[in-house]
Amino acid sequence: MGKCINHPDTETPYKCMKHNIYQCEHCLECPDPDIYCKFRTSCPIYFMSKKGFDVEEQEALPVGRETEFEPCTVTFSPGNISVTVPEGSTLLRAAEKADIYINASCNGKGSCGKCRLILEAGKVESTPTALLSDKEKSKGYLLACQTRIFGSEVKVRIPEETIEKKLRAEGMGKEATEKLHGLVEVITPMVSKTILHLPAPTMEDTVSDLDRVIRGLKKNGIDTSKLSTSLKVMQQITEASHKGDWKICVSVLHKKCSSEIVKVVPAYDESVSLGLAIDLGTTSIVVYIVEMETGKILSAASGHNSQAACGDDVINRMVCAEKDGVKKLKLMALSTINNLTKQALATLEQDQSAIENVVISGNTTMVHLLLGLESKYIRREPYIPTVSEFPIIKAGEMGLRAATHAGVFIMPGPASYVGGDIVSGLLYTGFHMDEALTLFIDVGTNGEIVLGNNEFLMTAACSAGPAFEGGGIRWGMRAEDGAIEKITLDPVTFVPTYATVENKPARGICGSGMIDLISEMLLKKVIGQDGKFRLDATHDRMTLFKDELAFILEYGKNLASEEDIIFTESDIRSLVLSKAAIYAGFTVLLDEVGMDFSMVDQMIITGGFGQHLDIGKAVIMGLLPDIERNKFHYKGNSSIAGAYMALLSRDFRQEALTISNNMTYIDFSSSTRFMDEFIKAQFLPHTEMRLFPSVKIK
Amino acid sequence: MGKCINHPDTETPYKCMKHNIYQCEHCLECPDPDIYCKFRTSCPIYFMSKKGFDVEEQEALPVGRETEFEPCTVTFSPGNISVTVPEGSTLLRAAEKADIYINASCNGKGSCGKCRLILEAGKVESTPTALLSDKEKSKGYLLACQTRIFGSEVKVRIPEETIEKKLRAEGMGKEATEKLHGLVEVITPMVSKTILHLPAPTMEDTVSDLDRVIRGLKKNGIDTSKLSTSLKVMQQITEASHKGDWKICVSVLHKKCSSEIVKVVPAYDESVSLGLAIDLGTTSIVVYIVEMETGKILSAASGHNSQAACGDDVINRMVCAEKDGVKKLKLMALSTINNLTKQALATLEQDQSAIENVVISGNTTMVHLLLGLESKYIRREPYIPTVSEFPIIKAGEMGLRAATHAGVFIMPGPASYVGGDIVSGLLYTGFHMDEALTLFIDVGTNGEIVLGNNEFLMTAACSAGPAFEGGGIRWGMRAEDGAIEKITLDPVTFVPTYATVENKPARGICGSGMIDLISEMLLKKVIGQDGKFRLDATHDRMTLFKDELAFILEYGKNLASEEDIIFTESDIRSLVLSKAAIYAGFTVLLDEVGMDFSMVDQMIITGGFGQHLDIGKAVIMGLLPDIERNKFHYKGNSSIAGAYMALLSRDFRQEALTISNNMTYIDFSSSTRFMDEFIKAQFLPHTEMRLFPSVKIK
Repeated sequence: MGKCINHPDTETPYKCMKHNIYQCEHCLECPDPDIYCKFRTSCPIYFMSKKGFDVEEQEALPVGRETEFEPCTVTFSPGNISVTVPEGSTLLRAAEKADIYINASCNGKGSCGKCRLILEAGKVESTPTALLSDKEKSKGYLLACQTRIFGSEVKVRIPEETIEKKLRAEGMGKEATEKLHGLVEVITPMVSKTILHLPAPTMEDTVSDLDRVIRGLKKNGIDTSKLSTSLKVMQQITEASHKGDWKICVSVLHKKCSSEIVKVVPAYDESVSLGLAIDLGTTSIVVYIVEMETGKILSAASGHNSQAACGDDVINRMVCAEKDGVKKLKLMALSTINNLTKQALATLEQDQSAIENVVISGNTTMVHLLLGLESKYIRREPYIPTVSEFPIIKAGEMGLRAATHAGVFIMPGPASYVGGDIVSGLLYTGFHMDEALTLFIDVGTNGEIVLGNNEFLMTAACSAGPAFEGGGIRWGMRAEDGAIEKITLDPVTFVPTYATVENKPARGICGSGMIDLISEMLLKKVIGQDGKFRLDATHDRMTLFKDELAFILEYGKNLASEEDIIFTESDIRSLVLSKAAIYAGFTVLLDEVGMDFSMVDQMIITGGFGQHLDIGKAVIMGLLPDIERNKFHYKGNSSIAGAYMALLSRDFRQEALTISNNMTYIDFSSSTRFMDEFIKAQFLPHTEMRLFPSVKIK
Repeated sequence: MGKCINHPDTETPYKCMKHNIYQCEHCLECPDPDIYCKFRTSCPIYFMSKKGFDVEEQEALPVGRETEFEPCTVTFSPGNISVTVPEGSTLLRAAEKADIYINASCNGKGSCGKCRLILEAGKVESTPTALLSDKEKSKGYLLACQTRIFGSEVKVRIPEETIEKKLRAEGMGKEATEKLHGLVEVITPMVSKTILHLPAPTMEDTVSDLDRVIRGLKKNGIDTSKLSTSLKVMQQITEASHKGDWKICVSVLHKKCSSEIVKVVPAYDESVSLGLAIDLGTTSIVVYIVEMETGKILSAASGHNSQAACGDDVINRMVCAEKDGVKKLKLMALSTINNLTKQALATLEQDQSAIENVVISGNTTMVHLLLGLESKYIRREPYIPTVSEFPIIKAGEMGLRAATHAGVFIMPGPASYVGGDIVSGLLYTGFHMDEALTLFIDVGTNGEIVLGNNEFLMTAACSAGPAFEGGGIRWGMRAEDGAIEKITLDPVTFVPTYATVENKPARGICGSGMIDLISEMLLKKVIGQDGKFRLDATHDRMTLFKDELAFILEYGKNLASEEDIIFTESDIRSLVLSKAAIYAGFTVLLDEVGMDFSMVDQMIITGGFGQHLDIGKAVIMGLLPDIERNKFHYKGNSSIAGAYMALLSRDFRQEALTISNNMTYIDFSSSTRFMDEFIKAQFLPHTEMRLFPSVKIK
């Protein structure tokens, strides 16, 4: 027991072992962020497992008071994971203790209605809630954060639709799985598993245990001519062979030019082999857990790259790495990935040792920082990365949450500013194999573009910045629940009509929403072609924020947060700079090969826009060129899709290397041509209106 | 300060941190083994660094009294290793503190005269000694244990001849080095070093740092098609390249079917590359440190395998591993090797990180135990080892005192009871390439024999036991200083005339001495053909030891130890069983291919006999067959010689694999034919005297 740091009059048993401070129940339940969140980003009293940091094992049970409560056992299915908690604990706390990830956006306040579970057996007490229908209640649905445990044995189930909804929120789920699944016909993982039924040794057949295993692999068609074995595996072979009565399961890691036996267990110990596909974005990180045998995506998770604390873009990250050491940034990205993997694994019946294959798709800087490679020469002329074509390494070498022997394939990066995420994009969209001349853009933080077809591939990066991902925009956010993603403005009153992701109360605005908003404001003359407001602060929809004009998207009085959701002139400026960089990039890249927009057969757009990018409105604001609308194709997160394909197929891993080697990189950083085009494009839609004949601004 | 455990009246500052006991200066200097040696085999107060165990860093300086003494700095050359000790410390203690191995057989009593150093500068005080000549004294020679330091700066040099003498004692030194050196014409190490002068990157040449290194290696003729790189090395490349201004030194480990970049440093950081050859014997372990560029043996060390505490032979070791866990035996062998390596490195200017190549030559059981591999099925029918052909592993995987990236080649073993040490023997003696029919015997603990030539190779093990190495023999010892190695008996008085290794006072009897003694006793009728004494205890040279007759080789009154050196009837019995097993092995192996001794063109003997094996006397006792004496060739320690060759040459490593694969193993363990021959051979020289026509016993 100790004095609460926020309420010094209160004695409390909740002690943070990390900060050596106490917080009382009032703090933990108080919605006031100044009190409640005092340590929310780092303190274990606040359960951090959902927040991108992997903290030491901790438990916020009353210290020294455990015996005052009857112990209750809670079992979660699927997975039959049991945990014992004191009587009166919430189901949410029990799930946290059991390391089971349950979506609880409101952090247990009972307001988001996401932490839905189904009671199967046992005695609980729930606070009444309007977030569940009577029909749901009759089926046993309850909110984990609003339900306290009283029976000694409680059984709950995580609803199917919760899992599926979570997948859909990541842009995945059954539908996407099927879409991706069809892309890989023959599964050829890095780490393959073979069941061997070996003949037991006799006085006539006395080859060593290792030779017996190698002979067995050879008989099973595995190329053993370049096979090596670590000492650790040699130490496993004999015991596994005898325990399994010469029926064993052998895992072999296939590298580019050699292979290695990485694990030998008795055949009866054989378990499912999982794969981990990682989209390592500058802003966001997405992971998929894949069943290697079938290619089925079993679960997914996404979150903010916790390196964001060191800056929004790759340049700032590298500056930070130079100042504080690359190790710091390495650990930040690693902890985000490991934590997402933990979340994604939580609903499966497997632990990290089942993950034997990993693919990482990210830009060159992100990958360097994750691997702890020196990044400082990437940002200095002549911009040289340490590695562009990464040898397959083992997960244990880099500390990933996976089997230590898991093979890790890192998407090769053609240049310092065009990385493996773009190669993933090509792998997924496949335009490098078509005749059609394609312009490809990934609107992430860096704005990489590719121009080409089956004859040539040219690429460049135009430093678009993170605005379209919500970075640097006051109310900007990713396309998560509650993000405004579609907007129209009333031509007279300018009252916006908007739609949010999952139709949840508005929490901010995502990329597609911003594009809608800017083009609507331009068309309806809320702003001029220079991006400045034509309305003043006296207008109903306008306000001043830090002496700057801002458009009010939604009044705080309509929101739980009670704060206006606004869009400032600076926000517009950020987006204009981003779109200008991208458009200038298109122009210069085409110019390099003596082409123009009219010759482009198709335009592929990928990136974090959400699912409702309005191409027409993106043309109106001058982000995309004014070409036939049917030439545009939005492909979602192609970085994770490419990682998924490489995870399952040796051919795709090989193809990734071919793509990377075939790309010619054009450096814009010292190009005056690019600067000229960049300046010309800093107008809505463009200084030269003849380039946008379909855009009529009266 | 605390009470001495031996002299409770005395307060003493010498505390053993391991046993938590004190011993006083009287204990430490007392020659009485009951007091002095109370903890000698395990207590850090007694410096263990010379004794085969690697103990925690320790220092027997007066605890809490350091400040009462002026600090003195002692610098040892070669190597310029400095250490600070309190005024009044002996040079021997300073050397121990500096981790420099100085031979001091008498443990600092001033009686062996081995710890010779040359004073180069500084003030010391030496106790007068007759063990140094006036000429030596005038050159600055002194005994380290008898010299106390008083100047604040003292410089001493380890004499050249001390280093050379130590090598000779290991059967090596300049002469042997030259002999071995000629065997390897082209040096092709596992880890090769290449200096690359790379072009600095420009905007026109933007390949990644790793690709630049690989391109450089390719230009230098290194096959890069199967080259891999660990993450650790990727993390070194960029910094090394920039620090070295694109002049770098790259170490590549060449495995059987692949290679790996294991280290990248700036070229100016390039250092000498050392090799470590290890003869891992059941009883003794020998290590050589070799300069990889030239093949020169720089230093050597040998000692008892500390596994001996778990039994004399491989069977007992395996029983022990099964009971106590293989890890225990692994650590024992590893600590012996690491300690010997430390000794051998101590006089060189390099530390363990310079060792980038290692070869281990040992029998199958010893190698399994060292690697922590399950050995229990080696001793059970059908006698299967875990591994016979070992992939190259890294020193870091097994904990060897070497660079963690050092390549470790383990001599392949053709069978569970004929191991890599025998393959080494063939590699060194080369008879597998000759037409001459050769009978090869390694008289170590196991008594492996090989019969063959360039057309066939048959091998067997006859469990000779460690008697010829001194194991199980009351006064048995290896051929070290003071070992009786040659003996003749007066035909009338039976007074022995003997010679010892290095002419030092007798300390025991080694293999060649035992063979001499038994044949002399047989010829002079001290014993009968049954190995029993014909003299009784009343004879001057005879005594009773534990109710058993024993021959007195030297009276205690003539020895510092004051104990008689004796040879008992049990000792004779042990040797007779050993020689019978070996002779029976010869007979059965020849019989297997329908041959007999008369068809043998040459007989090669290797093993720990010392340098003075008298072939004639070995025939008289029936150890060796009675064939022409010029057919016999004694080749010393061929296990270490083969390890040396494999260390330097890829061809020899490949040849070792070929030899191992070409050997046919004959199992004697269930052979009635072998048992018959074994029983017939338990007579001196043999039950069938017609087999030994030249041996006349009147």
